[in-house]
Amino acid sequence: MKAFQDYYAEDFSHCYGCGRLNEHGLQIKSYWEGEESVVKFLPDASHISIPGFVYGGLIASLIDCHCVGTAAAAKYLEEGRDMDTEPALRYVTGSLKVNFLAPTPLGVELEVRGKVIEVKERKVLVEAKLLANGKICATGEVVAVRLPETMISK
Amino acid sequence: MKAFQDYYAEDFSHCYGCGRLNEHGLQIKSYWEGEESVVKFLPDASHISIPGFVYGGLIASLIDCHCVGTAAAAKYLEEGRDMDTEPALRYVTGSLKVNFLAPTPLGVELEVRGKVIEVKERKVLVEAKLLANGKICATGEVVAVRLPETMISK
Repeated sequence: MKAFQDYYAEDFSHCYGCGRLNEHGLQIKSYWEGEESVVKFLPDASHISIPGFVYGGLIASLIDCHCVGTAAAAKYLEEGRDMDTEPALRYVTGSLKVNFLAPTPLGVELEVRGKVIEVKERKVLVEAKLLANGKICATGEVVAVRLPETMISK
Repeated sequence: MKAFQDYYAEDFSHCYGCGRLNEHGLQIKSYWEGEESVVKFLPDASHISIPGFVYGGLIASLIDCHCVGTAAAAKYLEEGRDMDTEPALRYVTGSLKVNFLAPTPLGVELEVRGKVIEVKERKVLVEAKLLANGKICATGEVVAVRLPETMISK
């Protein structure tokens, strides 16, 4: 099964958070799971904040890139199209909000679950929760904004 | 002149965003400049989103760690104390909001300027703007929450 990010054109595959071609980056892979989108990610030892816990910037990055990918996938779904059909739909982050509810433990696989709240013509609103060991450690909200087609190289 | 982060105790100096001891991390250095706090950071080539631009997760990380450092510095200032005096004041992120106003160009030094909005007993609210080439590309808002003293090792 291909991840949302596997459908991104090459020019959109260099992102530190979600680009499959960024060898230094996180290379997250997002999938549908029922009506929610899911990404799993195991932070490495460098992603520390206070000893034993994950730093907030990684959590923000995971939520950001996962929700932007979810936004694109949701718009394709709404249009009844596969993600490899033209015209390509790509989104960027308009705004990102993260609430840190509990310290996120380092050393376990994290799961971010996205829920599409609203799909508009040029914007998609996605909510997310980040779990570690099944416990919600952070929640997020992303407004993803569709890129003009002129900015998307084929 | 020592940066805010240079005063952090060793246990608080491993953070990927702001820890001086994290050799893989960003190692940001924040300073007062008048009533604002300032950090300058030059992203590297891997911090890309779309070719030519910085990915949102880095922007979120810079705003997050800079504002949390600013929160601690502001509380010391309010108490009329130097940052190397006891009891140590350390903050973590309660919430982070980032508005991406314009694409942030890759290849130039970024500047994040923080402004302390409110210093309460256990929380500090800090607003930030991120500039590239003198233009505001993002704004942010961080609620920093003071760590209980029991969590701060000396």
